Amino acid sequence: MDTKTFTVNPIGYVRAGEEGFYLEIAPEYRPALKGLEGFGHLNVLWWLHLYDEYREVLECDQPYRLAPAKLGIFATRSPVRPNPIALTTVAVLSIDHERGIIRIPYTDAEDGSPILDLKPYHPCEDRVRDVALPDWCAHWPQWVEDAATFDWSAEFVNAQ
Amino acid sequence: MDTKTFTVNPIGYVRAGEEGFYLEIAPEYRPALKGLEGFGHLNVLWWLHLYDEYREVLECDQPYRLAPAKLGIFATRSPVRPNPIALTTVAVLSIDHERGIIRIPYTDAEDGSPILDLKPYHPCEDRVRDVALPDWCAHWPQWVEDAATFDWSAEFVNAQ
Repeated sequence: MDTKTFTVNPIGYVRAGEEGFYLEIAPEYRPALKGLEGFGHLNVLWWLHLYDEYREVLECDQPYRLAPAKLGIFATRSPVRPNPIALTTVAVLSIDHERGIIRIPYTDAEDGSPILDLKPYHPCEDRVRDVALPDWCAHWPQWVEDAATFDWSAEFVNAQ
Repeated sequence: MDTKTFTVNPIGYVRAGEEGFYLEIAPEYRPALKGLEGFGHLNVLWWLHLYDEYREVLECDQPYRLAPAKLGIFATRSPVRPNPIALTTVAVLSIDHERGIIRIPYTDAEDGSPILDLKPYHPCEDRVRDVALPDWCAHWPQWVEDAATFDWSAEFVNAQ
């Protein structure tokens, strides 16, 4: 067992409530937002704080309609993971540097989720032209923009 | 100052040496690789272990030829970050479940970099069709596949 441990700290929190969706960056980290203007999307790394107790889970029962009976956690985007860090690509609506607020259309993060990092979405690092997928998810949408209008209700067969 | 701290542990290590590039997953985490077959690319989260001491840096001097004189760290993919976690999208060449080895064509990670998480690359979560970029990087390649043949030498003006 590898016993090395590293520590991470929140740089802000996801807000998802009546005031819409936004990323609230803590005052001391707001200088790090300089120059984010112009990026249409960000990669957000955030902490799955509700799943910190499930790190020992390595496999899950068929999570999707056409998936195998058992799937390893690294083959899923499940919130249950050895290191509960989520990656979400979000569109940027506006940036308020003074208040540290980045408005976004939507996120699947729980209100109050700690944010660990923001990275600009660069096509040369993040956008794959020739994607290969297993048969069980090959019919899912081919673009981030099309995910919201896809009928996911039929895809999930075992609630996580 | 937010004093909350979370801990992460390596699930394996990046290997980059004479035997080529691969991700070596620790024995206890190998069951989590089940069902990864068929994914052409993975998102790898890894720890920038050489940059753990530079977390207080929030801005950098013009890192790219056309970038502003000062750029916030969250507007860059610099290894210097408040939480030194890197995100790299890699192509998968082969997976050896028994030995926990995932061969990849290349990575910019240092040999021995701790791996924190593997996630399958899903176009519906990771692939943006309509990308917007600031003027200073709009001429960079539009796809991961084209990054390797681009002449980056002229782009970096201040070594990190």
